[in-house]
Amino acid sequence: MSYIAPVKDMLFDIEHLADIEQIAQMPGFEEAGLDTAQAVLEECAKFNEGVLAPLNVEGDRHPSSWKDGQVTTTAGFVQAYKQFAEGGWQGLQHPADFGGQGLPKTIGAACIEMLNSANLSFALCPLLTDGAIEALLTAGSDDLKSVYLEKLVTGEWTGTMNLTEPQAGSDLAMVRSRAEPQPDGTYKVFGTKIFITYGEHDMADNIVHLVLARIPGAPDGVKGISLFVVPKFLVNADGSRGARNDVHCVSIEHKLGIKASPTAVLQYGDHGGAVGYLVGQENRGLEYMFIMMNAARYAVGVQGIAVAERAYQKAVAYARDRVQSRPVDGSVNGPATIIHHPDVRRMLMTMRAMTEGCRAMASVAAAAYDAAHHHPDAQARKQNQAFYEFLVPLVKGYSTEMSLEVTSLGVQVHGGMGFIEETGAAQYYRDAKILTIYEGTTAIQANDLVGRKTARDGGQVAQAIAAQIEKTEGELVRRDSVAARAVARRLVAARKAFLDVVGFVVQQGKASPNAVFAGSVPYLMLAGNLVAGWQLARSLLVAEDLLHKGQDASFMQAKIATARFYADHILARAPGLRDAIVEGGDSVTALPMEAF
Amino acid sequence: MSYIAPVKDMLFDIEHLADIEQIAQMPGFEEAGLDTAQAVLEECAKFNEGVLAPLNVEGDRHPSSWKDGQVTTTAGFVQAYKQFAEGGWQGLQHPADFGGQGLPKTIGAACIEMLNSANLSFALCPLLTDGAIEALLTAGSDDLKSVYLEKLVTGEWTGTMNLTEPQAGSDLAMVRSRAEPQPDGTYKVFGTKIFITYGEHDMADNIVHLVLARIPGAPDGVKGISLFVVPKFLVNADGSRGARNDVHCVSIEHKLGIKASPTAVLQYGDHGGAVGYLVGQENRGLEYMFIMMNAARYAVGVQGIAVAERAYQKAVAYARDRVQSRPVDGSVNGPATIIHHPDVRRMLMTMRAMTEGCRAMASVAAAAYDAAHHHPDAQARKQNQAFYEFLVPLVKGYSTEMSLEVTSLGVQVHGGMGFIEETGAAQYYRDAKILTIYEGTTAIQANDLVGRKTARDGGQVAQAIAAQIEKTEGELVRRDSVAARAVARRLVAARKAFLDVVGFVVQQGKASPNAVFAGSVPYLMLAGNLVAGWQLARSLLVAEDLLHKGQDASFMQAKIATARFYADHILARAPGLRDAIVEGGDSVTALPMEAF
Repeated sequence: MSYIAPVKDMLFDIEHLADIEQIAQMPGFEEAGLDTAQAVLEECAKFNEGVLAPLNVEGDRHPSSWKDGQVTTTAGFVQAYKQFAEGGWQGLQHPADFGGQGLPKTIGAACIEMLNSANLSFALCPLLTDGAIEALLTAGSDDLKSVYLEKLVTGEWTGTMNLTEPQAGSDLAMVRSRAEPQPDGTYKVFGTKIFITYGEHDMADNIVHLVLARIPGAPDGVKGISLFVVPKFLVNADGSRGARNDVHCVSIEHKLGIKASPTAVLQYGDHGGAVGYLVGQENRGLEYMFIMMNAARYAVGVQGIAVAERAYQKAVAYARDRVQSRPVDGSVNGPATIIHHPDVRRMLMTMRAMTEGCRAMASVAAAAYDAAHHHPDAQARKQNQAFYEFLVPLVKGYSTEMSLEVTSLGVQVHGGMGFIEETGAAQYYRDAKILTIYEGTTAIQANDLVGRKTARDGGQVAQAIAAQIEKTEGELVRRDSVAARAVARRLVAARKAFLDVVGFVVQQGKASPNAVFAGSVPYLMLAGNLVAGWQLARSLLVAEDLLHKGQDASFMQAKIATARFYADHILARAPGLRDAIVEGGDSVTALPMEAF
Repeated sequence: MSYIAPVKDMLFDIEHLADIEQIAQMPGFEEAGLDTAQAVLEECAKFNEGVLAPLNVEGDRHPSSWKDGQVTTTAGFVQAYKQFAEGGWQGLQHPADFGGQGLPKTIGAACIEMLNSANLSFALCPLLTDGAIEALLTAGSDDLKSVYLEKLVTGEWTGTMNLTEPQAGSDLAMVRSRAEPQPDGTYKVFGTKIFITYGEHDMADNIVHLVLARIPGAPDGVKGISLFVVPKFLVNADGSRGARNDVHCVSIEHKLGIKASPTAVLQYGDHGGAVGYLVGQENRGLEYMFIMMNAARYAVGVQGIAVAERAYQKAVAYARDRVQSRPVDGSVNGPATIIHHPDVRRMLMTMRAMTEGCRAMASVAAAAYDAAHHHPDAQARKQNQAFYEFLVPLVKGYSTEMSLEVTSLGVQVHGGMGFIEETGAAQYYRDAKILTIYEGTTAIQANDLVGRKTARDGGQVAQAIAAQIEKTEGELVRRDSVAARAVARRLVAARKAFLDVVGFVVQQGKASPNAVFAGSVPYLMLAGNLVAGWQLARSLLVAEDLLHKGQDASFMQAKIATARFYADHILARAPGLRDAIVEGGDSVTALPMEAF
């Protein structure tokens, strides 16, 4: 088996860190306890291990192809997508009213991880559909909802996000596509959109494009952008598929990775205008798009965890198999499998600890999302929402950056074989590279963290998180275990580094914007590192308790060893980041532009 | 122009850090002063910028191909190689007796960097030829020298290194190829060699394979390996090309990067035995191979610098061109080129500082090599040799690891365009990944650093280097510049971290080999970081002096800003590495093998 879903680790996080039983107390989630989580995850594992994982290499070797405006996906994808839709996997987190199962994100996120581990390229299609569903749920009229939502939730149709244009990437203010109002209340959409994931494909009957465009006379910049639904095929009054709309795929990109996923250039309106339907109100498109983006950003963070997990599994398998050299401690008298060698262990532990740390962070973020939407108490909802929003750039930014390190180590563990494409380790390295770029680069996440999430409230949410971390430190030092105390020491140092940086951001943001934003990505890396390390520290506390109760000793010992490793080797990076941010801000922009 | 050789920066290092005028005092290097360096570098830049750089993308898109045992290289390579050989570039550092120019490594290394920046895949062919020349110069009989050396030095023929077999990668003790002695004093060689760079190609009339194999009855392990010359075509008594030898290329690999460079599987002796000639004495093959390896390891380190430089240039060009978003400091009232944004500057500065730091380190290492071979004083030769040997794993390991970070940032600066293969940034990311693997993985370099270079002499050379660094710190603190003092602070912290680790390695090496070797790669990263940072600190001192003398202000200011950035952002990582190594050794191997 090329991928085995880490169901046990996921359930540990869901039970002990995200506290699923607490979530199951909230209105609407009554069915969503640990038993449900386990049943869903096991079913999900079966599907992904059996159906999607084997198609991953195929997709890399035989990418989607374009001919005369049509895209043909990798052989096997159409059938696999059918099974995906029929299994109800698209609707896992979406409302039962529209054909979904209404499960918490806490459970859904684990399923999304499996999907992406199994097949990152395939998983992008449902990921984008999720975004379209969110946008329509939030801002769509009843008409739009009734025409599109059930089709999307059941996976019969798929969705896309159309933001980017050649001149408008990170900077959406520069969007030029235009939408001209028609007498019947619809719009005619014109323009070119690029980098549209699954913008064209053969896996579903219809594609529902959500498109940013300007209505004539709208204000300049981001305040003049509206959001439109533009279906590939118009929909008849009876819900059946109607005429082909004027949106066409003129090419797909030749990419470094995620090759099975077609990245389309879409041309709107070359034959008279594509029929579009306004979503919500005029000029509020960016706001609605952010709903999709925030869902998608979290999901891209999970993609980072997913590809890291798969790279880890492959590296472990190779390290157990490949025989080379005598161990330095003499434990084997002759050549041994390379997992005996300390540096191979360091690489595997780094991969494992980073992956588990980010998974734990994503799991508690999902729980906060669920509580923010379902907690009966308004104050608790608000607090959870703030916590979730702080975590989104960390889940997206830190998990994807760590996936670059993990997939690079994955190649390295394989030595020369890693560089040979047939081995497969290189695919993860190539696939992962997009994750720090799309749905907002790491710098864009970091700007969000610095601006909206830290400076705007004077660092209050950041400090509240630090206070929670301090409580965990207190619990750790009360333990008499060496591991707990070692973890506590690194956690204290990392938290203090974090607070220094938060203070710097809050105090210097106005006076020295260049210095603060020069440190934005290092700040994100520090904060993500800290929160992931904190969750592993919590895991250690739980694991020690359960170990004392005699529960699953080898799993609990592994949790403790992994948390300890993370603290010693990854959290230990935090103080250096603090120094670079707080004391090195000016040196980033000291070299004049013309001197590069 | 897709690549402009950084001649000015190279000459700065050669003049002020490597002290070429000092080298030109040594016997044999009388012609090799700064003027010569400048003339050679400028000529070299012209050739590489004009001829080889434009072929780099071609090689990636149309790799070498194999058919019926023949390898056809990318269109243009044959002609370019002819120009390379005719220009005398292969013989730059080799003895005039055999047709070379006998220039110091201090000059040659800069030329090798240009060659690799221009075209990493192409440059591998001369790189391997250099290794073959070194081995024959050191251990070849007069006969072998007279038959092969001039042909190799002039570039008429090329050389290869044949170490790896399917079961013998990092572990050469497992080499199984065999060489049977013949009555005429030759050997018949049998076996399979894999990963043989330019093991077959169409750019030269003959290929001189240097092959590790066992003579029947030889001891087990590395002490029973001998080195042989096995030419693709036998050589007639008059020096003309003779019969085809029994070595055949049965396939080439499909790789992540360096695609133009054919990586061959070579089959020896399938048709009766390949004729081979023993190099030096029986069973000393590994020793001779290490001569080639050490030359090659240094050169691979330079490859890291080279690909980093090219990635940097491409990223700068894009950052100057791409317009996106308003600067956070309000310096432009509207969308600006992205080089205005602090995070883009941070990425570019990281790329620049790492590249310049590693170049400076490689330059002083080359000067030590030259002094080790040409200094009239035996004690000075010995000291320089020890310094050079300490630096080889750093140049190889640190420069190549940093090239992964730099080429990754290079993609990141390009945003979504970076992920599109046509952009070209992804090629550097793919190409660079082999550098931390071939000629000894980073872990193999780190083992060398820990074992032969640190533990064996009780840390003496390491401490001597630290003492030199301390002198530089003294000079820095005597300056009244903010930059010098900021650099001094980070340099002190990094040096102390280094000394702690050296102490740990020396004291714990025997008692806790697992803990020490678990920290071997972090130790290499710390040491490389420190030595590169030290050389940039020296650069800062020189640049401040020259600035006061009114010399080339913008270049000197850039040097100072780059050194300061390196200290603030890269050297700042050192204390965290120290903590991970010294305090985190046990947590690397705490998780039992079966628990992964």
